[in-house]
Amino acid sequence: MSAVAIVGAGYMGSAMAWPLADRGHEVRLVGTHLDEEIIASCKSSGWHPKLKRRLPGGVSPFSIAELERGLDGVDLIVQGVSSAGVAWAAETLGPRLDGHIPLLAITKGLAHDSGGSLQILPDHFDSLLPARARGRVPLAAVGGPCIAGELAGRRQTCVVFAGRDAALLERLAGMLHTDYYHIWTSTDLAGVEACAALKNAYVLGIGLATGMLEAVGGPDEAGACMFNLAAALFAEAAWEMARLVGLLGGDPALVPGLPGVGDMFVTAQGGRTLTIGALLGRGLGIEEALHELAGVTLESVDAIRVVNRALPRMEQDGRLREDELPLMRYLGEIVAGRAGRIPLEAFFGGQRSSEA
Amino acid sequence: MSAVAIVGAGYMGSAMAWPLADRGHEVRLVGTHLDEEIIASCKSSGWHPKLKRRLPGGVSPFSIAELERGLDGVDLIVQGVSSAGVAWAAETLGPRLDGHIPLLAITKGLAHDSGGSLQILPDHFDSLLPARARGRVPLAAVGGPCIAGELAGRRQTCVVFAGRDAALLERLAGMLHTDYYHIWTSTDLAGVEACAALKNAYVLGIGLATGMLEAVGGPDEAGACMFNLAAALFAEAAWEMARLVGLLGGDPALVPGLPGVGDMFVTAQGGRTLTIGALLGRGLGIEEALHELAGVTLESVDAIRVVNRALPRMEQDGRLREDELPLMRYLGEIVAGRAGRIPLEAFFGGQRSSEA
Repeated sequence: MSAVAIVGAGYMGSAMAWPLADRGHEVRLVGTHLDEEIIASCKSSGWHPKLKRRLPGGVSPFSIAELERGLDGVDLIVQGVSSAGVAWAAETLGPRLDGHIPLLAITKGLAHDSGGSLQILPDHFDSLLPARARGRVPLAAVGGPCIAGELAGRRQTCVVFAGRDAALLERLAGMLHTDYYHIWTSTDLAGVEACAALKNAYVLGIGLATGMLEAVGGPDEAGACMFNLAAALFAEAAWEMARLVGLLGGDPALVPGLPGVGDMFVTAQGGRTLTIGALLGRGLGIEEALHELAGVTLESVDAIRVVNRALPRMEQDGRLREDELPLMRYLGEIVAGRAGRIPLEAFFGGQRSSEA
Repeated sequence: MSAVAIVGAGYMGSAMAWPLADRGHEVRLVGTHLDEEIIASCKSSGWHPKLKRRLPGGVSPFSIAELERGLDGVDLIVQGVSSAGVAWAAETLGPRLDGHIPLLAITKGLAHDSGGSLQILPDHFDSLLPARARGRVPLAAVGGPCIAGELAGRRQTCVVFAGRDAALLERLAGMLHTDYYHIWTSTDLAGVEACAALKNAYVLGIGLATGMLEAVGGPDEAGACMFNLAAALFAEAAWEMARLVGLLGGDPALVPGLPGVGDMFVTAQGGRTLTIGALLGRGLGIEEALHELAGVTLESVDAIRVVNRALPRMEQDGRLREDELPLMRYLGEIVAGRAGRIPLEAFFGGQRSSEA
């Protein structure tokens, strides 16, 4: 039995308390300054208002003011903040990391390194640590399809723990797996992390079809929807994801698996990422769409912007052609406020027949 | 402008009339003996009762008794029968094929060659032709995500025309593409055909999650469904599909694209394949489930049986290990009437952590 601190009491961070508690670990759920109401509710009644469940036995809530006590003597930290909170997490946790306590991150996203190239989030987090901890914290990350509410409901879930240290991954998987939380491991950290971030970007694109159907008044008189278009967007997303995973140094063979199409499939079943895509597909401008979803973390929009900003450099280096990644570029245009037609004819390498 | 006969007036065969007519071709929709009611309706009122639409202008319905006239002088035959009708189609069309009229098949399925090995449907069709036509008919096939009702509704659709003759594919794509029917071409006939058949088999597996959710009374008190499980099944399906495409001589890189995950995604949005999976997932035996869907063509069940029958030979040849394709083998058990737990622990190469 170990002591584990989860830092960040949002959906996914909190949901990790279930397999941890079910395995008998002492779990400390530490909220950030954004989670004060959640922690107050957990303290008063054990009720997690976002997950709409009582915390399992063996989980103790801590407010951010109690961080010291929450981290005292822990064997593992689960880093459960959103991508917007990574800098905060590095600053807050950094001085308390000694190179021995491993950190398992559930955050999905991509960042830029100092030269403007794409950087996976664990490396970005590491670069933000204080000098004495940098490069010394044993890091791992979670990928694969996992809706937090289902994990907390103990529904069957298959995920991937990724990191560069295979022994650490085995140790972490051994600590967390249950009869409903099935864990595979991968030392392709770059590939798994790229998939996790890119699926958010691309599911926004798949959501466009939903909005375009709404814009024409829904199904036609014979019931025809726009699933063919959604499926073409899904396929191009998988195609481009394989290319981008390769560019980030990962193995494109991850895409037909849990971290790639598995995670993209589950994300396309509903939720805020699909919703913003639907709003944009309906014809709303980016500012209107963001306004409708005010207060919601939109890692999809961030990921699209971060990837698009890094493309010119890849072209200059000769690693990417200008006609590649047409869907990602189109998504970049949309979130920059410039609408237009989905460039279907450029999909799949543009090998479409165009004869009249 | 060309004369084109579509043989088979079911959903997908009939839907092909829309892009053909919109491109100005003379289209003859020839029903089989199973399509008599459809053709009678089309003749009396132009109304296609399955697609729930009036046929577009330029499409003439023909009953099977009028086959000769329907095929007279055509430049292209669209082979629109189901996989169960392939032998009938070879027998009926064979004597009328002269090695010049190309045949574009929309049938999805797999068969066995005389030695019991897996065979793609175009090759199986060819093997059933009369000796004088065998090996001489210019064959192509359609893959990719295409719900027939959406194609007939002129919704945006992206497909792949596959065949071994690149020039033929370009000619056919040139004849059929419209501003809503976008056509890519691939000379990887084995790969595209394998994807088309396998996606039916695997979507039955994805449907199991829907039925398992129903069996436990639906979403729990906090709304948790079983999308994580469905996504894990989708991911393992893609993973195994890549392996099987390779075993059939195709390129696994097709899987993250239109013929693979694109077609699987659209098929997983609903319809009979998902329904039979849901019935089985709910706990019904195969006979009960088939009884509930009486009269419906179940290419998914056929594909599962055909693939499973071919696995022992691949193992004997040393091309496949016994621990590979756990989902396909599990589906084989289910359609053989033997139920059991989904072998999640064997998925993705079985590299799951199993430490306590």
